[in-house]
Amino acid sequence: MHLFTSKFVERPRQVEELPGSVSTPSGFKAAGVAAGIKASGNRDVGLLVSEQPCSSAAVFTTNAAAAAPIIISREAAASGELRAVVVNSGNANACTREQGLTDARVMAAAASEAIGIEADRIAVASTGIIGEPLPMEKVTAGINTAAAELSRHGGGDLAEAIRTTDRLDKAGAVEVKLPEGKVRIGACAKGAGMIAPEMATMLAFITTDAAVSPGALGGMLKTASAASFNTVSVDGDMSTNDCLLLLANGSSGISIESGSVEMELFGEALAAVCKGLALKMVADGEGATRTVEFKVSGAADAGEALRVARANATSTLVRTAFYGRDANWGRIMAATGAALAGAGALAADIHYESICLARDGAACPEAAADGQRLQAVMEQQEISVSVDLKRGEASHTMYFSDLTHDYVTLNAEYTT
Amino acid sequence: MHLFTSKFVERPRQVEELPGSVSTPSGFKAAGVAAGIKASGNRDVGLLVSEQPCSSAAVFTTNAAAAAPIIISREAAASGELRAVVVNSGNANACTREQGLTDARVMAAAASEAIGIEADRIAVASTGIIGEPLPMEKVTAGINTAAAELSRHGGGDLAEAIRTTDRLDKAGAVEVKLPEGKVRIGACAKGAGMIAPEMATMLAFITTDAAVSPGALGGMLKTASAASFNTVSVDGDMSTNDCLLLLANGSSGISIESGSVEMELFGEALAAVCKGLALKMVADGEGATRTVEFKVSGAADAGEALRVARANATSTLVRTAFYGRDANWGRIMAATGAALAGAGALAADIHYESICLARDGAACPEAAADGQRLQAVMEQQEISVSVDLKRGEASHTMYFSDLTHDYVTLNAEYTT
Repeated sequence: MHLFTSKFVERPRQVEELPGSVSTPSGFKAAGVAAGIKASGNRDVGLLVSEQPCSSAAVFTTNAAAAAPIIISREAAASGELRAVVVNSGNANACTREQGLTDARVMAAAASEAIGIEADRIAVASTGIIGEPLPMEKVTAGINTAAAELSRHGGGDLAEAIRTTDRLDKAGAVEVKLPEGKVRIGACAKGAGMIAPEMATMLAFITTDAAVSPGALGGMLKTASAASFNTVSVDGDMSTNDCLLLLANGSSGISIESGSVEMELFGEALAAVCKGLALKMVADGEGATRTVEFKVSGAADAGEALRVARANATSTLVRTAFYGRDANWGRIMAATGAALAGAGALAADIHYESICLARDGAACPEAAADGQRLQAVMEQQEISVSVDLKRGEASHTMYFSDLTHDYVTLNAEYTT
Repeated sequence: MHLFTSKFVERPRQVEELPGSVSTPSGFKAAGVAAGIKASGNRDVGLLVSEQPCSSAAVFTTNAAAAAPIIISREAAASGELRAVVVNSGNANACTREQGLTDARVMAAAASEAIGIEADRIAVASTGIIGEPLPMEKVTAGINTAAAELSRHGGGDLAEAIRTTDRLDKAGAVEVKLPEGKVRIGACAKGAGMIAPEMATMLAFITTDAAVSPGALGGMLKTASAASFNTVSVDGDMSTNDCLLLLANGSSGISIESGSVEMELFGEALAAVCKGLALKMVADGEGATRTVEFKVSGAADAGEALRVARANATSTLVRTAFYGRDANWGRIMAATGAALAGAGALAADIHYESICLARDGAACPEAAADGQRLQAVMEQQEISVSVDLKRGEASHTMYFSDLTHDYVTLNAEYTT
């Protein structure tokens, strides 16, 4: 239940962490129940509901094989007035043709009836296996049970109900001190595999009791996700079901106006919450044992910085080296050089934390003296690596997990 | 010593396989010796020499961190008259600054002195660990020993001397029946990791006793590598040292003129040899247990076909599914949809061999009936998968290996 466990996320000064989850901001209720979709018998259907009308903002996968719930929710989200979410895990309702669209609409309709909110104000989300029809009887029964169990304390159950291969809990809540008073932000997320920049196999639901217009909400969510969910990679695979939703119900009585100090502070808090969730996904990356912060600087332009960061974040050679606690800067140089193919001789500097391993494209002579410190760095659970290309001023930072035996075991044996 | 072991390579009708290697075409000699660069004591320095002047063609890595020997050999190859190669394994002489360039030049000079051929007709190649200086005393001593051991039967030793993590032999020879008589093509290659389209961590040396102009040779090599080395992926990482060399010494007395029937037949044979070597690299991919032929068709344009093929070939989720013998077409749909982000709904068909698993973007109802046949397909060492995007006419085929526990073990423990 702690959002700021990574050294790569700073908790903004006006933010205080609360015990809690997505139902902690006032006026929200949640539930998560076991409907029998997952063979394990774990919770697999959930609801998140605001008692009041909301402003909303949303980000969806751009995958051309977008799942049925994404298509339905994209339409509903256009209103900027979503106020509830119905979700299932264990089945992604992806690659399911017209039947999938019908099933997603039935989920919204069932939730609408059970909670008394118009269906077009309800987002639908699914995660799990691709290509199989939803077991609709179980799903609708689950929705009814969840509706009966909705409570202010149901956020934890909802967080459980959206898990698939996740090992770690990814939920939390904060209080943000604004000049006018306090508002709360609550969140829960899932995602451990199919995690790639530009959305991942992730669901993330964020709530707040601040009053914010849909436009301002959308702007802040875009900024926050650019520096969080869009900078993380577990396996470089973008899923069919990624969905990030932010609901603001205003029940704190405090308004966040565009361009105000409040908006700046709230935006910072939202960004920190998103980055905290995103880094939890990396730390919980399937089979992962460590998180690497990979900072590219000195790139000729933003595209080049992004290209180099991604090439390294998705290089199986770079990622296995971190698993092996091997400070193998040569693989970073090779992946970086491949990303810059044809760009002329690479004269990059590479640091692991503050230790220089390569300067001007070749081994750093003084690195040997730091052998023991380097060993200690490679044992850290969070390692910061910087690559200065010395070609310009652009930079990009990405976070990725190592590639391990357990990743292979999980993904060779688990049918998604 | 068999080049055509994969079902994905057809031996052209005019081609007969010979026992032999890169020194099988007449007028070539080779040697491979243990010079003490590899801790294992295995062969690590080699020479390949033509008794006569040659025409030559070459393809080098485009990696911006190209190794010193690449820079030296690129200059020498510009003449189109290379006639010898000096090579070491165990150390890539990459990311080694000016010292690396000096060392690569010293290798060429030492070979020149030992075999009596001008240094600027000698290509230099290195493969192995990145970022460490070459142990030049061992290297030059090895070059002298190799020169003394040069023989018509040394191709096998040379093939051994260029290995790093390779498990399988990648060498062979063919005889090509042309209207005028027979010519031979010999080859040896190395490469198992850092294998990606657009060259790989590979060295490949090909010889022929046909007489071919450098221009015609270059054209045929480009065509052959486009359909072979540039279609294979083990880990999606392009190395700093990739190098493909083709030497033609004309000692068969048979000329291949541009635009002739001979050129067509010879080009086919060369393409088959290259594809045979490339598929051996995939089959020998680090830790690999199977090879997947991934055929994308129906793409809107060539770029889209390539993008989809690469996205799947480098997807850790797709690759681990093949390791797990899991016909997980959902992961292929997700990787394909991600590669086509924003392109509108994906309605692809997916076949594993002739079994339809997805039609119009969703599960194929009749697939269940093929369950047993599918199981058998997934146990094959070579599996052909086709994805028809139904968006246009363009196509691209790529070959990749599965991602396994052994890959992780090898690359977490081995310092390259």
